[in-house]
Amino acid sequence: METLGVGLIGTGFMGKCHALAWNAVRAVFADLPRIRLAALADSEQGQAERKAQAFGFARATRDWRSLLDDPRIDVVSVTTPNHLHAEMAVAALEAGKHVWCEKPMATSLAEAQLMLRAAERSGKTAILGYNYIQNPAIRKIAGLLRTGAIGSVSHVRLEMDEDFMADPAAPFSLRSDAKSGYGALDDFGVHALSLLRVTLGQVKRVVAEMAMPYPTRRLAEGGERKVGTHDIATMLVEMRGGASGMVALNRAAWGRKGRIALQIFGAQGTITYDQERLNELQIFRAGALADEQGFATLLMGPAHPPYGDFVPAPGHQLGFNDLKVIECRELIARILGKESWTLGFEEGFAIEKTLDAAARSFAKSAWMAVE
Amino acid sequence: METLGVGLIGTGFMGKCHALAWNAVRAVFADLPRIRLAALADSEQGQAERKAQAFGFARATRDWRSLLDDPRIDVVSVTTPNHLHAEMAVAALEAGKHVWCEKPMATSLAEAQLMLRAAERSGKTAILGYNYIQNPAIRKIAGLLRTGAIGSVSHVRLEMDEDFMADPAAPFSLRSDAKSGYGALDDFGVHALSLLRVTLGQVKRVVAEMAMPYPTRRLAEGGERKVGTHDIATMLVEMRGGASGMVALNRAAWGRKGRIALQIFGAQGTITYDQERLNELQIFRAGALADEQGFATLLMGPAHPPYGDFVPAPGHQLGFNDLKVIECRELIARILGKESWTLGFEEGFAIEKTLDAAARSFAKSAWMAVE
Amino acid sequence: METLGVGLIGTGFMGKCHALAWNAVRAVFADLPRIRLAALADSEQGQAERKAQAFGFARATRDWRSLLDDPRIDVVSVTTPNHLHAEMAVAALEAGKHVWCEKPMATSLAEAQLMLRAAERSGKTAILGYNYIQNPAIRKIAGLLRTGAIGSVSHVRLEMDEDFMADPAAPFSLRSDAKSGYGALDDFGVHALSLLRVTLGQVKRVVAEMAMPYPTRRLAEGGERKVGTHDIATMLVEMRGGASGMVALNRAAWGRKGRIALQIFGAQGTITYDQERLNELQIFRAGALADEQGFATLLMGPAHPPYGDFVPAPGHQLGFNDLKVIECRELIARILGKESWTLGFEEGFAIEKTLDAAARSFAKSAWMAVE
Amino acid sequence: METLGVGLIGTGFMGKCHALAWNAVRAVFADLPRIRLAALADSEQGQAERKAQAFGFARATRDWRSLLDDPRIDVVSVTTPNHLHAEMAVAALEAGKHVWCEKPMATSLAEAQLMLRAAERSGKTAILGYNYIQNPAIRKIAGLLRTGAIGSVSHVRLEMDEDFMADPAAPFSLRSDAKSGYGALDDFGVHALSLLRVTLGQVKRVVAEMAMPYPTRRLAEGGERKVGTHDIATMLVEMRGGASGMVALNRAAWGRKGRIALQIFGAQGTITYDQERLNELQIFRAGALADEQGFATLLMGPAHPPYGDFVPAPGHQLGFNDLKVIECRELIARILGKESWTLGFEEGFAIEKTLDAAARSFAKSAWMAVE
Repeated sequence: METLGVGLIGTGFMGKCHALAWNAVRAVFADLPRIRLAALADSEQGQAERKAQAFGFARATRDWRSLLDDPRIDVVSVTTPNHLHAEMAVAALEAGKHVWCEKPMATSLAEAQLMLRAAERSGKTAILGYNYIQNPAIRKIAGLLRTGAIGSVSHVRLEMDEDFMADPAAPFSLRSDAKSGYGALDDFGVHALSLLRVTLGQVKRVVAEMAMPYPTRRLAEGGERKVGTHDIATMLVEMRGGASGMVALNRAAWGRKGRIALQIFGAQGTITYDQERLNELQIFRAGALADEQGFATLLMGPAHPPYGDFVPAPGHQLGFNDLKVIECRELIARILGKESWTLGFEEGFAIEKTLDAAARSFAKSAWMAVE
Repeated sequence: METLGVGLIGTGFMGKCHALAWNAVRAVFADLPRIRLAALADSEQGQAERKAQAFGFARATRDWRSLLDDPRIDVVSVTTPNHLHAEMAVAALEAGKHVWCEKPMATSLAEAQLMLRAAERSGKTAILGYNYIQNPAIRKIAGLLRTGAIGSVSHVRLEMDEDFMADPAAPFSLRSDAKSGYGALDDFGVHALSLLRVTLGQVKRVVAEMAMPYPTRRLAEGGERKVGTHDIATMLVEMRGGASGMVALNRAAWGRKGRIALQIFGAQGTITYDQERLNELQIFRAGALADEQGFATLLMGPAHPPYGDFVPAPGHQLGFNDLKVIECRELIARILGKESWTLGFEEGFAIEKTLDAAARSFAKSAWMAVE
Repeated sequence: METLGVGLIGTGFMGKCHALAWNAVRAVFADLPRIRLAALADSEQGQAERKAQAFGFARATRDWRSLLDDPRIDVVSVTTPNHLHAEMAVAALEAGKHVWCEKPMATSLAEAQLMLRAAERSGKTAILGYNYIQNPAIRKIAGLLRTGAIGSVSHVRLEMDEDFMADPAAPFSLRSDAKSGYGALDDFGVHALSLLRVTLGQVKRVVAEMAMPYPTRRLAEGGERKVGTHDIATMLVEMRGGASGMVALNRAAWGRKGRIALQIFGAQGTITYDQERLNELQIFRAGALADEQGFATLLMGPAHPPYGDFVPAPGHQLGFNDLKVIECRELIARILGKESWTLGFEEGFAIEKTLDAAARSFAKSAWMAVE
Repeated sequence: METLGVGLIGTGFMGKCHALAWNAVRAVFADLPRIRLAALADSEQGQAERKAQAFGFARATRDWRSLLDDPRIDVVSVTTPNHLHAEMAVAALEAGKHVWCEKPMATSLAEAQLMLRAAERSGKTAILGYNYIQNPAIRKIAGLLRTGAIGSVSHVRLEMDEDFMADPAAPFSLRSDAKSGYGALDDFGVHALSLLRVTLGQVKRVVAEMAMPYPTRRLAEGGERKVGTHDIATMLVEMRGGASGMVALNRAAWGRKGRIALQIFGAQGTITYDQERLNELQIFRAGALADEQGFATLLMGPAHPPYGDFVPAPGHQLGFNDLKVIECRELIARILGKESWTLGFEEGFAIEKTLDAAARSFAKSAWMAVE
């Protein structure tokens, strides 16, 4: 493949993020096909045109389906609101396009299953935008676990916290509406679960609780409305590999801005990570003398691929958008049939099943198996 | 009261800790009664004599009951192994002594209840050695919560981790024997729960899981033995005050040495604390401008009583043993009928009931109310 | 200006970094002219062609002077080894091009002066690649100081440490050769001094010391060679604004990977920063009650421009390469005659004069004024 | 020696600190002579009596010289204001008492020399209260350096910061009066220098600068007065062992409460320490694989003597007063002719000579040798 034709649907936070990645990926990484930014779709034509120009796409349209008929497009980035993922991803796959779909996969397990089946039928590459797994620190953690650096894992803790729902005075918005999903569990908890997935594998059973810090919110137009989502979710989990664990998700956590904290305890050591310092991980290895043991803080550098493709000097720091560039590169590798570090629709579906079990557990106040 | 006569039972880790506190308390704090170190009991006479001399006690005995008949003794420190607490505390209370009993209260809920009743009948002061609540940082956190500094609390996370059971190669010991209790839940989790109690009040219901990282351990004499305790315990909790929470306890957590980490989320801010840095707390207050908000790290100093009784300069750090000196002072205040920051047998019993509900929850794999 | 034509000289660490910035700048920031990647020069033709293709430049050449004759090129990125900066920058300016030259400005004060004069004569924009000043955290610090957030500054400490020269077993290389410059002082200390410049202004006088941890190094071909550079430099400084300060630079600092640490003490507070965590700054403000004062850790977010052009969510982290994209945007603003946060050749020359005074101070073991 | 008789002069911050140590030392450490708290002197009789009772001393007096005639007293704690140290220490030594004198040694080099000579003549133990060297973390650092853990040391940085002089609105006090000494340099910088002494040995030459953040201060009675001391001192140093270094002292450092930060760079690694977290040190060792190297944080525990004499569990934290108990124990060991980790008057005099050279360097704006 000499050239990879790209179509982008959506121009919001994630749309721009994909656009930046498509612009950068070939300059960062060697030996990639040429990237042709073929077309960009947005539901509003003016926005589509402005963004196509800013992002360097050749064509702008308000008809996303027109991308599917475009033979110069090989892969479609789907970055629209969550409830549109299923329809667009399925259509793109059926049109023979590869798909790079943002997370969460869908707004229901049934939709996610349709997407998985479409991917399987098509034989095309279909991955989800779980960009945090692309952090060299997370890859390093996965590698350490795989090679037994901390022995058999007995226990894991995973926390994800931000404060965009923390203000009780903020007005009712879509995120408080039950239509948007469960709340913390699916709206952003999936990112946390993606890290669990690539480090420790699949959840076997779960007991979950959800909480609502502010049961009502004021309406912009006056009056109040009952809140339908839960900004806090907590779970006890048992992993298929045997480890016990707990997951805590809070999108009303004042002061937390991008925290995804992982603590993994094994028979020979412990690994910890906090995404608010995304270029670091900590590891404690058993075996050192009692007077010289301690958690080591590893700063990412060229020894932690693919950091070195961005900066040849260690400790100089990657950022959020760099992780999307790595994801883009891994997507291309997968399209080319090469080794790839990505979460495809199958793994994404496994994450959705975990969420679904958690939601059922909460509804029934009982432990629930993840089928 | 001009003089307070003290009897000490036990000379191990906690016996020495009480002895240090009794020696220091009057030099640290002004206006206390004179302390008379009357008698020390240890099951081994030679040890009793050596320690009585080292700790400055007037008399040594291997008969702890002889302390109860000694009219010069007003208060008895009970620092023996957990299964002896009930017998000794009850006897001391019945003999008209005040009691300073180490945690955990007892090895069964029934025993704890006997102790509580004895305390109630006696009208004497009876407190438990939950010294971590004496940390000026914890008192400050409790004060911040009481005065609404972070608004209504919606969520709490509590972790306690050490690594004294982390080595899979360590031989079978009492701590792996079911006779010693549940494991992480009661052996050291009670310390964590004491912090929850003084900051956020009582647990209403709980679902708990326990895990065993090493199902067998080698015997010193050869062969292996099945482990009967759980080094890991996790819980989801709901507080009476309405907050949702999670508790994770791990005494097989490589690299953790004295971690008790607290995260408390409220409608107006967040407070965090980690006991491995026991002179610090962090607070985030909502309301600051978006470009100048952040977690503030408060270093304890004379502005955080009773730090200033130890050192007049801030940031110079208190240590573990200092917390016991504070506890000793609070005990004396309670004996004298003054305001006191202590956990008496009633509050201790409430903690034991939480443990009991957690253990029942684990046995039944179900949510359980704390009666 | 509808389109800005770009020529790039050099394809190493900084060449790639400029290329990435030129590719990204228009997608990140709104309302910029179109960027035309016109030509790329590298001393080796094959490399030039490979990189032109990877970075998206229209033309490749081994003759950097051909860029100066190209009317489609408006601005030239100079990213070649330090000793070539002066010749290239002067020639580009004389050819009527704007210049974006990497730091350090030159390898002698005389050369730097020639560059400054060429810039002044040309009337063109000429800036230096001090990208660390582009960090939103550094801009925020400069803003805090400007608005008096910590009052009058009395004292500053500045440290810069990496470990690329720390290994005594590493062979003699150009960096150990006196031809390469003084060592820590100019090779990388200039980055640190750029932060001093934008936050606190100009150094008035200095006393400096330099040290050589390893006086000889082995030659790859066998034998040893005397080292001619100093991996460590320390200075006491007095700022024109009156503050006392110290600067410590160490490129043989094991374990440090990208540390530039700043501590600024004022009459009303203190600000600290460490570039190994480049998305954070700490501020302590006097005036809070004694029991609630502490250093606040600010995590960068959209409230800290231009963070929000990269990511709309706070705490999600920028990286090293993002800083160069910001620098590129500021360069374009300066070319367009708009407000711009950059260090031009005049400010760069002031930094070079500080270095020169430090080197003379070391030679004479005496305080030296910066003229 | 069966019993050690103790006399204490002074009942302020340090007087109480010595009293706490004398009360605790025998309970903490095994196999010490019995401590007899014979007499306490304070210039005010009522205070002397109150404190004698609180601290457990048998006799109270306002005549410190009466302690020197008391045959039951073997050792005298001198904790009075600095200008009284010389007279008292010399008299006590001449009376055949051992002396435990608080730092700084004296208020002039001449006085310090008299004290040293008195100590030498007497043959008695005479040590200075440099309690920070007693921190197990500092002992560990000294041990690591001695055994070559980080190879030959090339560079050191030492900072000491507190904020008790930071408020420009605070009134003129003794500390602003030139009579009290130089300011940061001697008032508290000596503590920092004691750490340098026990880790890296003696300073060879120095160039120093001092600064005055607030040249005048208001008088409590109205009006203003010129300040005569310097709250900030900075130095470049060269150690006898060859390392280059810098020292920065600031007692007007808003937000710093008890910071003494040490960074030691060697050919095989780096060690760092910050006294605001006095139970920790960080070490980076060269030699690990590039992808697994990092600073390890060591938490003090029983493996770091004499931590275990205070608490048998690691990570449970020592405090400021515990360091004085250790110092007391080391003093007793030295009196008994055993191995002892203390700074005697000879080493104290070496520290005073460093200060003196720094003050002369500042006066002459030149490098100065430490004789």
